[in-house]
Amino acid sequence: MPYTLVLLRHGESEWNAKNLFTGWVDVPLSEKGRAEAAAGGQLLLDADVLPDIVHTSLLRRAITTAHLALDVADRHWIPVKRSWRLNERHYGDLQGKDKKQTLETYGEEQFMLWRRSYDQPPPPIADDNEFSQAGDPRYAELGSAMPATECLKDVVVRMVPYWESAIVPDLRSGKTVLVAAHGNSLRALVKHLDGISDEAIAGLNIPTGMPLVYELDDELKPTTPGGRYLDPAAAAEAAAAVANQGR
Amino acid sequence: MPYTLVLLRHGESEWNAKNLFTGWVDVPLSEKGRAEAAAGGQLLLDADVLPDIVHTSLLRRAITTAHLALDVADRHWIPVKRSWRLNERHYGDLQGKDKKQTLETYGEEQFMLWRRSYDQPPPPIADDNEFSQAGDPRYAELGSAMPATECLKDVVVRMVPYWESAIVPDLRSGKTVLVAAHGNSLRALVKHLDGISDEAIAGLNIPTGMPLVYELDDELKPTTPGGRYLDPAAAAEAAAAVANQGR
Repeated sequence: MPYTLVLLRHGESEWNAKNLFTGWVDVPLSEKGRAEAAAGGQLLLDADVLPDIVHTSLLRRAITTAHLALDVADRHWIPVKRSWRLNERHYGDLQGKDKKQTLETYGEEQFMLWRRSYDQPPPPIADDNEFSQAGDPRYAELGSAMPATECLKDVVVRMVPYWESAIVPDLRSGKTVLVAAHGNSLRALVKHLDGISDEAIAGLNIPTGMPLVYELDDELKPTTPGGRYLDPAAAAEAAAAVANQGR
Repeated sequence: MPYTLVLLRHGESEWNAKNLFTGWVDVPLSEKGRAEAAAGGQLLLDADVLPDIVHTSLLRRAITTAHLALDVADRHWIPVKRSWRLNERHYGDLQGKDKKQTLETYGEEQFMLWRRSYDQPPPPIADDNEFSQAGDPRYAELGSAMPATECLKDVVVRMVPYWESAIVPDLRSGKTVLVAAHGNSLRALVKHLDGISDEAIAGLNIPTGMPLVYELDDELKPTTPGGRYLDPAAAAEAAAAVANQGR
């Protein structure tokens, strides 16, 4: 019997709109992002893909996206679980910086290394930087394990244990699971699910607000590699736009 | 060491605004209700009463109120638990009916019995009534225990086990607990906490969107009977307005 997993990247945030590196900075959705979240919920409703449980990060752009989408899909009442392990990649010292300006300052090669290399994190953020999360009570349990920067590999390392310990058991119990999260935590999950190489993952972009549905077999392998978007044409267009950020 | 419990009745719903009996019908907040929820969150933030966990009903007016209030209080990331046991009283065959019209049809005495008597439920709702929740997947686990009408006593009977098994353990672990729920599920809880008699509870009204804070001692008795509203003057005014509904 196949399992159903739905991935949903949050709608546009105020900082996506301003083209700033966001990472763990907890910015709200833009008005466009709120509309995207609601449209994602409508796609779920129309396709009769109805989550039984939702997992979110600890960041409001994912939490609000889940809330708005599930309200439209009339599934606002399902159980909720949250974890920092589903957070966006920590962008280190780049958090709060303009993407275009960073590209101009550091040049194309360094910029693309930080954005898309698998194992090259940006410089760590200082605790007294206004965009640091040091001291934020939601991460108190992390203690000294609190990241100050991350590459995608770091995200895979901290995300996969949550996948195994929290999401897989919900799937195994027969639930349709929604994961409302971020560009890079979802890329990490897709890499894991589809067995994408460290090199090839650089080319994968996930659009905002578009439900990506995976049917998984008994070994939790995708029956269709890459899953399927409920609105494939819109998803392809949006993914191309993500790839061009900073240009 | 005292425990901190915060009760929050949802903001005005679209049916509160239209003066209809709502019960388990899952109507959204009105714009005024959304503003009330946000204002409730601001009161929590200003008073530094910051929930560590939130319990909600399965109805969107309580779920959205919790979401909006916690977002303003910067506590949107806390764990969430939901239960039908925190739902509003089921209003039986009155669900969807106009309060003023019901008062005129049945007379003052019957109207007040249904609204405020402790143990007189309205007539049960038929499964094929458009305002019945029969067959709603969120109540599937209830089976034949699904109510078709409730008096306040019924709400106490189904709410208290959730209080004991789910909320009290969170309090005992030292968490500040927010309960985002409804006029009658919160009246049931206050009756239980303050030891209010079956007769006296009729006179107690809880206003919408106003955090009511209880400090509880080791026996979970309120250190101040009735708790304290974070904005006492506004709460007193609003409670008087609730008492006059249908007039």
